[in-house]
Amino acid sequence: MPNRTVFFVSDGTGITAETFGKSILAQFATKPRHVRRPFIDTEDKAEQVVREINMTAAQEGVRPIVFITLANELVRERLTADANALVLDMFRTFVEPIEAELGMKSNHRVGRFSDVAKSQEYHDRIEAINFSLAHDDGQSARNLAESDVILVGVSRCGKTPTSLYLAMQHGIKAANCPLIPEDFERGKLPTMLLPHRHKCFGLTIDADRLSQIRNERRPGSKYAALENCRYEINEAEAMMKREGIAWLSSTHKSIEEIATTILRDLRPDRLIY
Amino acid sequence: MPNRTVFFVSDGTGITAETFGKSILAQFATKPRHVRRPFIDTEDKAEQVVREINMTAAQEGVRPIVFITLANELVRERLTADANALVLDMFRTFVEPIEAELGMKSNHRVGRFSDVAKSQEYHDRIEAINFSLAHDDGQSARNLAESDVILVGVSRCGKTPTSLYLAMQHGIKAANCPLIPEDFERGKLPTMLLPHRHKCFGLTIDADRLSQIRNERRPGSKYAALENCRYEINEAEAMMKREGIAWLSSTHKSIEEIATTILRDLRPDRLIY
Repeated sequence: MPNRTVFFVSDGTGITAETFGKSILAQFATKPRHVRRPFIDTEDKAEQVVREINMTAAQEGVRPIVFITLANELVRERLTADANALVLDMFRTFVEPIEAELGMKSNHRVGRFSDVAKSQEYHDRIEAINFSLAHDDGQSARNLAESDVILVGVSRCGKTPTSLYLAMQHGIKAANCPLIPEDFERGKLPTMLLPHRHKCFGLTIDADRLSQIRNERRPGSKYAALENCRYEINEAEAMMKREGIAWLSSTHKSIEEIATTILRDLRPDRLIY
Repeated sequence: MPNRTVFFVSDGTGITAETFGKSILAQFATKPRHVRRPFIDTEDKAEQVVREINMTAAQEGVRPIVFITLANELVRERLTADANALVLDMFRTFVEPIEAELGMKSNHRVGRFSDVAKSQEYHDRIEAINFSLAHDDGQSARNLAESDVILVGVSRCGKTPTSLYLAMQHGIKAANCPLIPEDFERGKLPTMLLPHRHKCFGLTIDADRLSQIRNERRPGSKYAALENCRYEINEAEAMMKREGIAWLSSTHKSIEEIATTILRDLRPDRLIY
């Protein structure tokens, strides 16, 4: 039962404030309630949030923790002056030392994702999402040469979400292609992958976990049986080893961690820009 | 030409450090080089990064700016003691006031996404991605009742990336369904949407921009012609108005902003958890 509320208040989407605030709060053995308040870009809206904060403080008997990313001085002052809260000002805290270091003033611009929306980088991200969708699950060999990465592995080991994450967050054209029993019988990689082996990255998974995931889809099937999952995983790992394809296990990793590992190992250039 | 480098150094993926650092740097009229160094969780790895930082300082003639999220004290000390850089310690700066406020010590845990990977929340995200994929582009009316949101709009107005973003970042089951000339001729919403009108949210776009996007796909086609784009957009907006479906324009908005607006307007409960 949460007895304290954390607010994330921003003049933009609040995604930055929320992501950062959550990673700090993860270091405490407490589970507060989270409230995101995006697009707070006028003094009126700031006042409304202050009322909500102060009401929450009264109800819970402790003052909320409030992470803010507000570029406009007036909006920021309105919020910080009257809120009965621990206000953590994420911009101000770091902007000042950077101003001193760079010898220039910040422009106090609202961190709008829409500036991003007009950029080449954004265009590339959208293109990458379209590419990854068109090349999901080995759907198409067309333009596979354009891919940055091709994820391979048995069915339901996490290829699709990882491909989409790589595309969406990093603008990586990530195709994915399943390794299926027919491939194991032939003892060869799917033909469409042969010219692109150097771009392939493997995912594997514990048999227990795979069986559990597959059972959610097709309960009691041979496809989902533990024995069959073990067979497919062994064969897939043997094939990747034979073909010199690096792989990692998705069992205890999130898509964010898998994606970062793939970038680091296969496309370190994409961590520098 | 960048003449200064910014490092994002983390014992996890570094995604938090990078997202946050970039939003602060966006307030300065400068374009430094970005380098992300993830999984720096031993003193050895920290030393390697320090060498890279110091070499960069020597080459560029100015010291780099280094955003760090390092939970381990020893690793952090190794990095901060020897780096010729402006080190901005994102955890420490905010952890201390929160410790005082909560009256408890932080546990200095590495902010691993893998803790997340075992959670119900993570499971729901993956399920939502699968749902959104299965219900992309009006592919299936099956289980549409399970959707949290259904995006509607003309072809290529941004429905697919927005749906996938809602699923991936927020665990929202976001279906999407195009409005096509046949619908305008009939003067009715696609039949599959009728029982779910209250969950529909519209996207629209400027005709110029739509024509440009469609021309990248099918150059010179009637589909991409400005006149046709105008017709489709007018008809779609008229239909959404008639049906009482709220909509916004994707022309100058990123998927992050569109998704946040949809959450705020259609599912404000999802901004509180």
